[in-house]
Amino acid sequence: MAEMVIRIGIIGCANIARKMSRAIALAPNAELSAVASRSAEKAEEFAKANNFPPTAKIYGSYESLLEDPEIDAVYIPLPTSLHLKWACLAASKKKHILLEKPVAPNVGQLDEILEACQANGIQIMDATMWMHHPRTQQMRRFLNDKDQFGEVKAVHSCFTHAPGEDYLRNDIRVKPDLDSLGAIGDVGWYAIRAILWAFDYELPKTVLAMRGPVFNEAGVILSCGATLHWEDGRVAYFHCSFSSNLTSQVTAIGTKGTLHSDDFVIPYQEKEAYYKAASKNWFNDLQTGWEPLPSHHIISTDLPQEVHMVGAFAQLVRDIKANGGKPDQFWPLCSRKTQLIIDAVMDSIGQGFEPIEVVN
Amino acid sequence: MAEMVIRIGIIGCANIARKMSRAIALAPNAELSAVASRSAEKAEEFAKANNFPPTAKIYGSYESLLEDPEIDAVYIPLPTSLHLKWACLAASKKKHILLEKPVAPNVGQLDEILEACQANGIQIMDATMWMHHPRTQQMRRFLNDKDQFGEVKAVHSCFTHAPGEDYLRNDIRVKPDLDSLGAIGDVGWYAIRAILWAFDYELPKTVLAMRGPVFNEAGVILSCGATLHWEDGRVAYFHCSFSSNLTSQVTAIGTKGTLHSDDFVIPYQEKEAYYKAASKNWFNDLQTGWEPLPSHHIISTDLPQEVHMVGAFAQLVRDIKANGGKPDQFWPLCSRKTQLIIDAVMDSIGQGFEPIEVVN
Repeated sequence: MAEMVIRIGIIGCANIARKMSRAIALAPNAELSAVASRSAEKAEEFAKANNFPPTAKIYGSYESLLEDPEIDAVYIPLPTSLHLKWACLAASKKKHILLEKPVAPNVGQLDEILEACQANGIQIMDATMWMHHPRTQQMRRFLNDKDQFGEVKAVHSCFTHAPGEDYLRNDIRVKPDLDSLGAIGDVGWYAIRAILWAFDYELPKTVLAMRGPVFNEAGVILSCGATLHWEDGRVAYFHCSFSSNLTSQVTAIGTKGTLHSDDFVIPYQEKEAYYKAASKNWFNDLQTGWEPLPSHHIISTDLPQEVHMVGAFAQLVRDIKANGGKPDQFWPLCSRKTQLIIDAVMDSIGQGFEPIEVVN
Repeated sequence: MAEMVIRIGIIGCANIARKMSRAIALAPNAELSAVASRSAEKAEEFAKANNFPPTAKIYGSYESLLEDPEIDAVYIPLPTSLHLKWACLAASKKKHILLEKPVAPNVGQLDEILEACQANGIQIMDATMWMHHPRTQQMRRFLNDKDQFGEVKAVHSCFTHAPGEDYLRNDIRVKPDLDSLGAIGDVGWYAIRAILWAFDYELPKTVLAMRGPVFNEAGVILSCGATLHWEDGRVAYFHCSFSSNLTSQVTAIGTKGTLHSDDFVIPYQEKEAYYKAASKNWFNDLQTGWEPLPSHHIISTDLPQEVHMVGAFAQLVRDIKANGGKPDQFWPLCSRKTQLIIDAVMDSIGQGFEPIEVVN
């Protein structure tokens, strides 16, 4: 069974599905097996444009793909408002699910999805690619190093980009009925995940939205931020926006060390990524320089991070199918914690910027 | 008069005065002319240990140095609580003033100092060294570039270090009667200044202290932060701490560009500093990399930043003495705006983390 390849179908021809088609094709343990759109023509066109193998099946409806017994898993890049319906249906059809982020408009809908997965023995994972880059694992080891990094005290992260005026009015990501979370769902998701990651998934006690979030005419967030608070003065801050130059940074400051990445979401280059680590730094005697200097760490990878993600997902599915194992709970919990923070930020905004207690 | 060298005396033998002694000696337009301590022995010892020229005068009291007609200006590295008394006396004795930061425990005391300087035609400048590094001027040009950077939207900055348990209990910087501002005065000062600098000194409308500041037993802040708010959703965040690894970062995100420095307070190396600038960035078509890549800018300087600072101060003093000019108002205003933010953070903490309107 070690040779089992997981057959993945794509539900919906979103722009991001182009990148994921390539990733599924490149993953050694996955196969690009099908694509469904609301019209067979559109699916056919997508398959051709994205080098699907001749064996790949083309479906003119999402339902028909989900009925195919030769599909093991689906990748769902549909607008967030459609996740509940299609993820639950996929789960009921015993399809494992790689779900685009943000996973749901709120934790209530996410819980329905997670329950459907649980009830059907389905593996679910959100498509947060950077979590699977080998760099992330190496940065994790630094964060875990009590001697070099110590205990995390403060984290700040951001993800911004400036897709332009037309996008801010017309893209699905700023439509209340499609992606109601706007910038916090599309880009804030990553910044929040980075904070949870750096805090080793310990949820904060409280979340406080920053005053002055920016909305478009339809009431969808274009720019916002929040501070997160743990016991003993441990804090985090994130900022996300659709109105600023592309920037994606995370800095984690520990009692003994500092970690910094300025391209954590998507590395500057596909096959080489780096991060900066510093430990036990101090100024020299006259305070005219640092000792020691921070170090740059370069990680080469033959496979881009999204292929590592597909590989990790397919491996979990294979474990279930081959060995009768149970779905891994790390990834659904990880999605849920991220969603809890998003909900807390939205609640804080809704309640006039009051601090919101985070309840798991 | 172009050859006029400004004769500077040092009032108090603080640790930082060692670095400044070297800086004054290295500045071409300044002379290390005197040092005063509360005992002549201590002053003598300090002068010897820090290579004062044989012509330098040694004073056993601050008053006697201030009475010396051959001293043009003084550098005051005394504890903050003593600034009011000694800066005002120095001004009344017509000594120009390079004042260590934080300049005062609150803006009320600072205003008394500034009024004394104004009344006596005295130049005052706070000793925020990084402001004078040639790198800072080059970064400023990038921030001012409407085509490459656009308008500033968000800034985050931090300055932390971990001097250890003994310091947190016993150093003058955590004594309520000496440096009552603790970490926000000692390190937060820089992070706040970096924000004001990036916003071209436009004061925020409101300041909101982060919940969960950490205090020592005497009630002095060891760790805190705040968010700053301008109109149109423009925001900033800073974090400062005496309990985390040495970290000093500033990131300014504009509509078109991003600026980042991770050693803005004191460069990693004395003679070479760098910063990172990015402009009009986007992901490539499949979102597997960035276009264009951010650029590293390296700035070499023969003179360290503190020498540039002494040089700039001495130049202003020379302009006054040689040409009968008036004191430059940029630097006192800059000190005052920084102090206003510190006061607002302290007020916000005092008022249970309510937002504080910043009134100039």
